Amino acid sequence: MFVNETHVRVRYSEVDQMGVVYHSNYFPYFESARAESIRQLGMTYADMEKMGIIMPVVDVHFRYLRPAKYDDLLTIKTILKELPVHHKIEFFHEVYNEELVLLTSGKIILYFMTAKDMKPTTMPENLLLKLQPHFS
Amino acid sequence: MFVNETHVRVRYSEVDQMGVVYHSNYFPYFESARAESIRQLGMTYADMEKMGIIMPVVDVHFRYLRPAKYDDLLTIKTILKELPVHHKIEFFHEVYNEELVLLTSGKIILYFMTAKDMKPTTMPENLLLKLQPHFS
Amino acid sequence: MFVNETHVRVRYSEVDQMGVVYHSNYFPYFESARAESIRQLGMTYADMEKMGIIMPVVDVHFRYLRPAKYDDLLTIKTILKELPVHHKIEFFHEVYNEELVLLTSGKIILYFMTAKDMKPTTMPENLLLKLQPHFS
Amino acid sequence: MFVNETHVRVRYSEVDQMGVVYHSNYFPYFESARAESIRQLGMTYADMEKMGIIMPVVDVHFRYLRPAKYDDLLTIKTILKELPVHHKIEFFHEVYNEELVLLTSGKIILYFMTAKDMKPTTMPENLLLKLQPHFS
Repeated sequence: MFVNETHVRVRYSEVDQMGVVYHSNYFPYFESARAESIRQLGMTYADMEKMGIIMPVVDVHFRYLRPAKYDDLLTIKTILKELPVHHKIEFFHEVYNEELVLLTSGKIILYFMTAKDMKPTTMPENLLLKLQPHFS
Repeated sequence: MFVNETHVRVRYSEVDQMGVVYHSNYFPYFESARAESIRQLGMTYADMEKMGIIMPVVDVHFRYLRPAKYDDLLTIKTILKELPVHHKIEFFHEVYNEELVLLTSGKIILYFMTAKDMKPTTMPENLLLKLQPHFS
Repeated sequence: MFVNETHVRVRYSEVDQMGVVYHSNYFPYFESARAESIRQLGMTYADMEKMGIIMPVVDVHFRYLRPAKYDDLLTIKTILKELPVHHKIEFFHEVYNEELVLLTSGKIILYFMTAKDMKPTTMPENLLLKLQPHFS
Repeated sequence: MFVNETHVRVRYSEVDQMGVVYHSNYFPYFESARAESIRQLGMTYADMEKMGIIMPVVDVHFRYLRPAKYDDLLTIKTILKELPVHHKIEFFHEVYNEELVLLTSGKIILYFMTAKDMKPTTMPENLLLKLQPHFS
């Protein structure tokens, strides 16, 4: 299992008039947390795009248990339970506030695709090699 | 069953560098489509908030089948399959492009809550009365 | 002078916890209003990008006089006071609420650039021809 | 003069199909940079709102000189050239990339207002005291 923790400070623009983070504004947090996870492994998602691989989101399923507020310093947990086989990868995300209360959790499925012809591909070899030790 | 169709033009700011609508940007479309559905019934979500009722999102589950592009005129279908009992309401949304191809679909669960003390409540009586004819 | 009026309904996601449209969320309204202005002239900004011309924003100056609220149906006025010479174009925007009160106004400068090599270019000939009758 | 530097990593959702940060997405960076500036002084903007003071934006003027790209680690410089007198405060912001090239610069004017009755007010005394040493 591979686990990463990233911290995000809630911005004013992300909070609605109920005084809570608007539900869709968690997705950029998750994307940013996945990007930091890959960076922690010594690669970047930006590099991957330069190699011609893109990762469109194909499925999201999240539950919002408790609200996040303006200026909260959130912990975004990114969990990879299984190494991807083929072109599909599934990430689990959990959001905690400073009191370590779970606010939101769920999963997101992305595909590895070639940008040029939009064909399914697999995780780049060097990233796979960095991840393998976490799954043995 | 209650069904509404709302049209949304994709804005430049909603499209990412893959040239497709970023996955989280569909949620404001859905929210806007639910607001138009309620308006069609002769009430507004803004009225509901003025009555002290808010509707936080508690669960989202969507699949992204095909991308939407900049300037696409999308049709957002909002479907209510059952009248809400208690404080929970479940909407289904489908997104179609101008060629009537299904791009995205899924469901979203919201709660009726009192803004003052954040207690679960039920759908306002007048809205329920407007919806009932669609379910008999 | 060329003037266009476009209508935009304020979305829930665009309003902050002060209960007003967050200042940066007017810019997608303006962009959308410029796109509708061009469409009114029989062309689209999407077409222009397909021709290899992009229009990056280089300067914005706006004043926020009165707030817009959730669900307000805003009128976005787009004003072109002069035909562009060279690669620079200056649009004026005004935002009115349903009571025709002016909420926000200002101007935005964009450049016509070639996407391929990021060189300054001029307004496409066919768009210029459509605009000229408004300036004689 | 009071100067603060804050770092922001560009998110995927903030970049448009030209491959650059969409012009309006700098404003949440600036807001976040102002919030960090106040935090550096030992107070938070969230505290100020709890005291009943809000700070609506009334004027923005920015120039976009060079684009920021996905995953860029930006430096946002926040400069207060003068202590606010009355209810008006003027911040200057500059955005630099990792090569210390200036990308964007400009200024933003906000008002101190009482949330309860929307009347102009002044900067909270304790924040003013923290700022004064920077201006003597």
